[in-house]
Parts: sequence; structure tokens; C-alpha cells
Amino acid sequence: MQNLIQPKILKGFRDFLPRQEIQRNTLIEKITQVYRSFGFVPIDTPVLEYTDILLRKSNGETEKQVFRFTDNGGRDVAMRFDLTVPFARFTAEHFSEIYMPFKRYHIAKVWRGEKPQAGRYREFIQCDVDTVGSDSSTSDFEILHSMKTALNAIGVKNIRILVNHRAIFNCFLEKMQLKDKSDDIMRVVDKKEKISNEEFEQELLSALTDAHKDALPSIINFISKKGSFEETLFNMANLAGDGAKEHVARLNDVYQMMCAAGIEKTFELDPVITRGLDYYTGIVFETFLFKDENCTEKVPIGSICSGGRYDNLAGLYMKERVPGVGGSIGLDRLIAGLELLGLTEQKGSYIDVEIFCSDASLAVEYQKIASKLRDANFNVEVFPDAKKMNQQYAVAEAKNVPFGILMNKEQAQKDCLTLKNLLTREQFVDISVDDAIKILQNVLC
Amino acid sequence: MQNLIQPKILKGFRDFLPRQEIQRNTLIEKITQVYRSFGFVPIDTPVLEYTDILLRKSNGETEKQVFRFTDNGGRDVAMRFDLTVPFARFTAEHFSEIYMPFKRYHIAKVWRGEKPQAGRYREFIQCDVDTVGSDSSTSDFEILHSMKTALNAIGVKNIRILVNHRAIFNCFLEKMQLKDKSDDIMRVVDKKEKISNEEFEQELLSALTDAHKDALPSIINFISKKGSFEETLFNMANLAGDGAKEHVARLNDVYQMMCAAGIEKTFELDPVITRGLDYYTGIVFETFLFKDENCTEKVPIGSICSGGRYDNLAGLYMKERVPGVGGSIGLDRLIAGLELLGLTEQKGSYIDVEIFCSDASLAVEYQKIASKLRDANFNVEVFPDAKKMNQQYAVAEAKNVPFGILMNKEQAQKDCLTLKNLLTREQFVDISVDDAIKILQNVLC
Repeated sequence: MQNLIQPKILKGFRDFLPRQEIQRNTLIEKITQVYRSFGFVPIDTPVLEYTDILLRKSNGETEKQVFRFTDNGGRDVAMRFDLTVPFARFTAEHFSEIYMPFKRYHIAKVWRGEKPQAGRYREFIQCDVDTVGSDSSTSDFEILHSMKTALNAIGVKNIRILVNHRAIFNCFLEKMQLKDKSDDIMRVVDKKEKISNEEFEQELLSALTDAHKDALPSIINFISKKGSFEETLFNMANLAGDGAKEHVARLNDVYQMMCAAGIEKTFELDPVITRGLDYYTGIVFETFLFKDENCTEKVPIGSICSGGRYDNLAGLYMKERVPGVGGSIGLDRLIAGLELLGLTEQKGSYIDVEIFCSDASLAVEYQKIASKLRDANFNVEVFPDAKKMNQQYAVAEAKNVPFGILMNKEQAQKDCLTLKNLLTREQFVDISVDDAIKILQNVLC
Repeated sequence: MQNLIQPKILKGFRDFLPRQEIQRNTLIEKITQVYRSFGFVPIDTPVLEYTDILLRKSNGETEKQVFRFTDNGGRDVAMRFDLTVPFARFTAEHFSEIYMPFKRYHIAKVWRGEKPQAGRYREFIQCDVDTVGSDSSTSDFEILHSMKTALNAIGVKNIRILVNHRAIFNCFLEKMQLKDKSDDIMRVVDKKEKISNEEFEQELLSALTDAHKDALPSIINFISKKGSFEETLFNMANLAGDGAKEHVARLNDVYQMMCAAGIEKTFELDPVITRGLDYYTGIVFETFLFKDENCTEKVPIGSICSGGRYDNLAGLYMKERVPGVGGSIGLDRLIAGLELLGLTEQKGSYIDVEIFCSDASLAVEYQKIASKLRDANFNVEVFPDAKKMNQQYAVAEAKNVPFGILMNKEQAQKDCLTLKNLLTREQFVDISVDDAIKILQNVLC
């Protein structure tokens, strides 16, 4: 006998047992249904791409994290680290085959060689939607609305989606003659929530040149919430000046649509949200999960869903300018959040009925019953071996199967069976398979 | 402006545009539903694994094809080339957490650096089911039944699933004192369909030692179909002798279950099916697609679905012996076959209703209508820009949207709209959104 190999998986990677995978499937199916209900269509792209396609626009951090190698044909290739860069390449490559506005969803795995830590994995699933080819407030609103609807659909109610508009911030900085410091200032503002007020002011001051140190109070005023969405927007508009008019109007349009849809309470205008070094140029957002209905106590897992508007998706690959807006749910972080909230519902299988094998000689009869139940759209498992009944019951229980069917020789001759509710232990003895189907339809459908 | 990068993908890899991806999703959803209806549960495993886990049992051909590299942590890793080896590793690693019999499905991408050719890609999807921990004819039958049901569910009717039992062949060879030649003989028999009868006899003769050349007619008799399933089985049983009794009884059990389920016509006992060098030890099968109802003219794409029984899944990784039986649908080859048959139905979106933007100032009203329709479970797209109407209609047509909604200012004031059947051009003018929902429910639900 050869030596055994230790069965193990790579650090930062995970197996999904049935309970976890059913949970993940359920979430993906609900998110997919919401994305479809907003008119998004699915696409798919390869897991492997040319490295120069994936990494051209990335910063050094991404480059260190990407799974990259030379394939057998000598090509420099890499596994995708997000779904946005492949979508940009896709849009350029198929520009003549797609119609604008193009609204796509893509729910798939991506890979990053990050240091594994709580809620961070090297293989994880992103659930992306993007609308490209339209620079409208309608598209901005739809992305925000679809994110909220998707999160609600999977049972996540206590959320706040924090919205901002990067261009208003830029207009403000321009008015303050701080435009050349824009990147540095945004980087500091982006981490405001993670550091103390003192540290924040200190870092902001060091981002300003000596000539502009007195801008500090104005900046702090600009990034402060002033009560309602409209009040904060009014303050921002005042400080940013006329140059920001168009952007303020855009944000106001989006807010009016939120009100019309009755969903404005989920959204907050938060001038702190800048999305750091990202490529966004317009609206940006991040989403936080809370423990309570009033959304006062955050679940400590960071943003579960974020995105924004960019003014040129595929500029690296083609001359045509394609503006767009998109959002992404980080499924694995979301699941980590649900677990912290105790909101994870895991079931062991999709099975409605277990047909127990009390007599191996009736195997053919069990199969006949199974076929009839499947024809009536029930999911059915036939226990394959005549093991001890308590073993069979234990397996059905582990799989959370709600109903069992038993049939002995005598019943087989009379063409009848026993249906058993495995939770309540209620039994229906000597009934026909058609009657069993009726009972199951009443309870399960 | 920086230089543009040519947007291109790797040889053997593919993008899926919405029409293709919707088609693929539809097939996967139907196959998934069938797998669930047979009681299979989903699992997932990482795309990347340690190379020595994946390649330990493989032959040289696989090793050449695998995408393998050293990761940033210096680990020798590879992308999975099938779903069976990861399942074996999974079973060993989680043996104490799963319940036997364990029935799992796994529908996912795998990668092989094969020479790209018609119907062969370097990234493709396999749809696997396996039942491990039961050595029963019930499990054998269920795999065959679920494969047939899944293919039927996606509209593939003209199929023959060719079944055989490797152990009967082995008993026959043992009786003929040819057991030491078993691998060579099976390899020749496996390619019988691909070569002429003369070539076949020649190759078979050269696989036999001089002392056994006279076994040729017996072998040819053994691997010949003799009419019905039962007649062929009778012939095989006679030639294989008493040693094969148990295996003949197994195959007969499976056949009786096929008859009980009324599906026996789809199956043929074909002693030529041996699955070459695979690790199968019991029942084996391959599935062919035909152009006609009587299944006389094969679609030239090879087997679209195959599998069999193995006596020890995870033997490389643990001492416990886990017998099992499994099957796999090759989704991409299946789609290639459907295309050859003209059976591919492609739709451009999942959208039920397009709300046209005839007046940008009504954007908020359009969103309100969309929300109401979504609440009634329709998939709705709001056209985001007030483009020319013929452009908007063209996009809706490209997406195969069946209904359109129009609303002008006057209608908005009266809280009514126009619903338009985009296929028949039938119009319902000045109706309420509730009436529109009723009409849509009548037509679409």
C-alpha cells in the first residue's frame, strides 16, 4: 500500500460543506433574482487573463497579491482579482456586439493572495452590477436601489448605505485652491472612521502645505453631516460653490428618486465617503451592517457593499468613452456579518421526502414512489441500503428532511405506504402515493 | 494619452455574452433542479489546490495539461482539472463531518491546457453527481436515472446511454486466462467505435500473446450486442461464467429498476463500453446524442455524459474504503451538440417590461412604476436616457423584451400609462399601473 497523502487545502482557501454551500447558493439565488428584476443581464469572462490586461491600471498592492504565472505556452497570465477589470476588457472587446446602455451582472469567484484573517480569504465571491453607456441619475439611482433591494431580499434589514459625490468634494478643494492636494486629502478623509479625531486632524494638517493650514476648519466643516440628506447637501453645495452645481443637482435628483421609491431612510449623505484611491469620479457609496433597527451599533466587519460612478470604464483598451456606475456585494464578508448577527439559516439539504429502505427487496417499489413524487415537483431521496432504521433516521435528520415514507411488503402488495412528518412524528398509515402527494402539497407548497 | 492595450483573451478561453450566458445559466438551473430532486446536496472546493494532491494518481497526459505554478508563498499549486480528485480529497478531509451515504453535486469550472479544437476549451464546466458510501444497485440506478432526467429536462430527448459492467468483462477475461492482458484489451476495446473492424481485430490480436490468439472470436462474441438488454446480458453471463454471477445480478437489478421507472428504452447494454484507463470497477456508462428519434444517426461530438462505479474514492488520502458511483455532464460539449441540432434557444435578457423614457422629467414617475411591477415579481428595466424612441425600441428588441410601458406628462398627471405588447404591437392606452399588472399576469405568468 502506498503512503497516504495528507488531505489539506491551501491557506486562505476553503471547502464548503453542504450546509454552508446551500446557504451561499440561497443568497446568490436571491441576489441574482433581484439583479434580474432590475434588468441586468449575466455575462461571464475567463478566470485566467493576460497579466498585462489585468494589471495595467493597478497599484502596487494589487500586483503583490495577484496569482500570476507563466503558462505552458510561455504566456504571462494571472487569475482575476476583481470583476471590474475583466468587464472593462470585455466591453472594449465586444463593443460592437453589445447595446448601450449595457447593464450586466456577474457573480463569480476572484482571487487575491491577501494575508488571511477573519472574513478575508484568498478565494472569494463578488456580486457585481454595472450600467455602462449612460451618464444619468437614473442609472446611479438604480445601482443604489438594486443594492438595497438585494440586501433586503436576503434578510438584511439593518443597513445604512452612505453616499457621497466625489466631484463635489473636488470642486470644494478647487475653490480652496487645494486641488493639487486632492489625492492626499481624500486618502486621509477615507480613513477618518478608523482613527481618532486628533490623529485625523494631525494627518490632514500634514497633507496640507504650510500655505493652506488654515483650510483645516473648512475641510472639517465640509465633511461633517448636518442632519438630513438635504441639509448636508445644502452645506456641501454652499462650500463647494457654483462649480459644483451640476453635481449637486445630480445628487439631489438621486435623492428625489429615493423619496419617490420610499427608500430614502436607508441612505445617508456622508461627505467622508471618498473610496480612497479608487477610480470613481461621481457618486460613491459604502454599506454598513448594524446590530439594531436604529442603526446605532455597527457590526465590525467593514463595508459589505460598495461602488460608484466612473467616467471611462474601458479607456485602457479603446478610444470610445464609456461612462458607467456600478456596485458590488462582497458575499463572503456579508456572510461573516450575518454570522455575527446570528442571521445565518443553514439547512442540510434540499430534500422534501426521504424514502426509507426498510426492506431491500422493495428497492424497485421505492424507486417507483420516488419517480411519482419527483413528477409532482418534490425533491426525494431513496435510502440506498437496508441499514438499521435508527441510522436511516439519523441521516434524514442530519439533512433536515421534513417527511419520510415507509413501505413494507404487506403495504407494497396493497399499493399503499406510510407517510411520516419527521418533525411532528404525525403518521398517515396505509395511504396511497397520490394521497401522500396531496398531503405534501398542502404542507410544503 | 497612454497607448491602448489590445483587449484579447487567452487561446482556448471564452467570454460569454448575455445570450450565451443566459442559455448556459438556464441549462445549469435545470440540471441543478434535477440533481436536487434526486437528493444530491451541493459542495464547493477551491479552484487552486496543492499540486501533489491533484496529480498523485494522474497519468502523464493530465500532468502536461494542468495549469501549475509556484505561488508567492513558494507552494507548488495547480488549478483543478476535474471535480473528482478534489471531491476525493474533500471526502477524506471532512470524513467525520459528513454522513454516509453522501450524495453531492458540484457544477463548476475546470481547466486543462488542451490543444483548443471544436468543442474543446481550456476552461469548461462540468456538472458532477456522486453517491459515496453505498455499494448498492439503487445508487447505480439513481446516477443513471438522474443523468437521463437532467438531459431530458433541458430538452435533449434523442439520447442513448450505453451501459456496461467492467467486472463482468474482467471475469470473462479471467476465465479465458487473459487477466494479465486486461488493461491492453480494454484499451483496444475502448476505441472499437473509432476504428474499422479490420483494424480492431488486428489491434486485438497484437494485444494477445501467441498462446491466446484463438481467444479472438470469443472476445468478439462477448463484446457484441445480442438484441435486447436482457439478451446481451444473458450472453455475457454465459461467457463470463459463475465468477460473474454477482455482477450479472447487479446489472439485472439496475435493469429491473429502469423498467419499473419506464425508462429502459433510453439504455442499452453495450459490452464495448469500458472507459479505457479510468479508475472504474463496476458499472460504466457513456451517453450519445442523436439526430433522430430512433437514435440511428449520432451527433458527431462524442459522449456528453459519462461515469461509473469505483470501489475506493479516497484511498490516496485515508484508510477508510469509500465505494461510490458518479456521473458527469460535460456542459460545453453538450451545448456544442445542441448547437449542431439547432436546439439552442437564446434570449437576450430576463426582462419582462421595458419602461421607455419618452420624457426625462418623468424619471421619478418611471421609477415608481418600476417598483410596483417589481413588487408584482416582474423583471423591469427603466431606460435611463431620453434617447430617440426608435433607439430605445431597438435596445428592447435586442434584449427580447416582450412588453413596453410609455408615459407622457399628460398621462402622469392622470396617473395612467400605455402598455404595449412589443411583439404583437397591441396597445392598452391610458390604463392604471394595477390594470397593467393584471394584463401582464395574464400573459406572462
